[in-house]
Amino acid sequence: MGEFDLIQRFFTRPTPRAVLGVGDDCALLQPADGMQTAISTDMLVSGRHFFPDVDPRALGHKALAVNLSDLAACGATPVAFTLALALPAADPAWLEPFSQGLLALADAHGCELIGGDTTRGPLNICITVFGQVPRGQALLRSGAQAGDDVYVSGTLGDASLALAQLLRQRAGQTTTSAKGEPADSGATGVPLGAHDLALARQRLEWPTPRVALGQALRGIATAAADISDGLLGDLGHILERSGTGATLDTALALGLLGAHHYATEAAALLATPALRPVLLQHVLSGGDDYELVFTAAPAHRAAVQAAAHSSATAVTRIGRIDAAPGLRLLDAQGLPLDQRFQSFDHFAAQA
Amino acid sequence: MGEFDLIQRFFTRPTPRAVLGVGDDCALLQPADGMQTAISTDMLVSGRHFFPDVDPRALGHKALAVNLSDLAACGATPVAFTLALALPAADPAWLEPFSQGLLALADAHGCELIGGDTTRGPLNICITVFGQVPRGQALLRSGAQAGDDVYVSGTLGDASLALAQLLRQRAGQTTTSAKGEPADSGATGVPLGAHDLALARQRLEWPTPRVALGQALRGIATAAADISDGLLGDLGHILERSGTGATLDTALALGLLGAHHYATEAAALLATPALRPVLLQHVLSGGDDYELVFTAAPAHRAAVQAAAHSSATAVTRIGRIDAAPGLRLLDAQGLPLDQRFQSFDHFAAQA
Repeated sequence: MGEFDLIQRFFTRPTPRAVLGVGDDCALLQPADGMQTAISTDMLVSGRHFFPDVDPRALGHKALAVNLSDLAACGATPVAFTLALALPAADPAWLEPFSQGLLALADAHGCELIGGDTTRGPLNICITVFGQVPRGQALLRSGAQAGDDVYVSGTLGDASLALAQLLRQRAGQTTTSAKGEPADSGATGVPLGAHDLALARQRLEWPTPRVALGQALRGIATAAADISDGLLGDLGHILERSGTGATLDTALALGLLGAHHYATEAAALLATPALRPVLLQHVLSGGDDYELVFTAAPAHRAAVQAAAHSSATAVTRIGRIDAAPGLRLLDAQGLPLDQRFQSFDHFAAQA
Repeated sequence: MGEFDLIQRFFTRPTPRAVLGVGDDCALLQPADGMQTAISTDMLVSGRHFFPDVDPRALGHKALAVNLSDLAACGATPVAFTLALALPAADPAWLEPFSQGLLALADAHGCELIGGDTTRGPLNICITVFGQVPRGQALLRSGAQAGDDVYVSGTLGDASLALAQLLRQRAGQTTTSAKGEPADSGATGVPLGAHDLALARQRLEWPTPRVALGQALRGIATAAADISDGLLGDLGHILERSGTGATLDTALALGLLGAHHYATEAAALLATPALRPVLLQHVLSGGDDYELVFTAAPAHRAAVQAAAHSSATAVTRIGRIDAAPGLRLLDAQGLPLDQRFQSFDHFAAQA
């Protein structure tokens, strides 16, 4: 199958919102009056961002989701995206579910595929996404003020827990029984039964970009970022660009773990005191959550809850912004936590 | 070196034309009133689009040039671009010249780097470029009319000649002497001496996007495309989308070869009748030229020449658009040419 047949078959669709879509040298967009264009690009590499044998439908979903998450962090409304794809082979059995997963999420957000590029090469997916936001209303990383509350949407750490367990399984260090009992109780890992792993893995492979929440927070949040590389790192970007520090309540943060949705046995296991430092590591530094971390003045607490309600997205207040630089982590007793965390860095982490 | 240090060191620059540049979840562009945004994306893969040991400065140039060429084909003015980069390692000795080549071309076109992504993986460069064009004035592939002239800018086939020779050299099938004499006179290849190979290789590795010409052709050309995969294939896209055919004078097309700039000995060799079919294959189907093929009404011949003059870009008229579908190739005597050509397709060509 040739490159153009392939594009035609799986990726050419009506683009009513674009002036010009797939098939010319460029796509053309006509931004609405008074709107700014928000742009973000993310590249996903096989073996680094996903397992080579991942369900292609989930991969298509995630490739767009991580980009929509950046729009969400800016409070922008998705409009369109381009897709550049390097493929080892033009395999319809892979391309069909990939395009279905991708385009189902695109349709759900009214985000049109307006152009792209395909080539042969090691599997690599590069999406650039376009959103619109009223002039001057984009949520930036730079607006946090001392005294603001710090919030996180949804749950944190589950994707990272799932990834850790999948990596252990692939390394042959543990197995998960089909009945859901944890098959490994090693102290360094947090074993999940099959049922709980499936839930956590759903978070890893089918992340939900918080697009509606981001838009609802325009005019309310003072700063926002999406959590792709771990809460501490991504909040760190807000602090750096805002010239502030922050104090987080790690007991509240631990409550962000989606474990309370898990089966009873596993939830009990997750409450094991010895596992708390490991769990906290996943919550504070695990990547791949694609939640939003944002700040808002205490006077806007009701408005934040209203935004959460209107977007059907849970938000949890876990700390406050300080004038003093640095990030302070407190335990349940309000004492400084003696634990170090490492944020994810594609070059530093595994160098 | 970590991901963020790397971005900061080599790729963070002032972005006065963007509302918001590198460093937030999204970049923000504010299109000028009455302007549409032209968008194109291209992905370059090591070993497929370039040799792994290519000069990183040339690679940086080319990665942006191929995208600017798409803007040129639409008649758009470059504004900004994003860069997603998968790297085997964060090597400053590679990144510094790569960023220099990239940003020098960006500066020459006032095109700002407003965002991106870096990750570890097999070398892959994905650029998405943004231009602006007055509403309704973009050059499309779909506007060619029967009776229009067909033009090509610059020279064609040289990049393809250089690539063929470099591939032969790497396969050990030929060598080039340092004194410039061709060291191989096999009938299937077109041997270039060192001096001529250097000229042709310049076209392969440092293509010149015809941005000024594209803008000058707004309101004059009826259709345009850039020649990335070979003239026949890219003109074919114009014909398909315009619902027309075309007749090309292959004797005129052969004159597009940059060989007349080459050293005398090689130029004489290139005039060898036995080599004409091979040369014509390079001119008509060779990739990587990044010239423009465009159509314009005969009444606009003077306007086309004025656009060529104002943009300091040679253009050559090589044929006409027909109402009847299909592409007809004529020889110097005006008779149908009995030669088949294959356009480049990333999946079909080497499958």
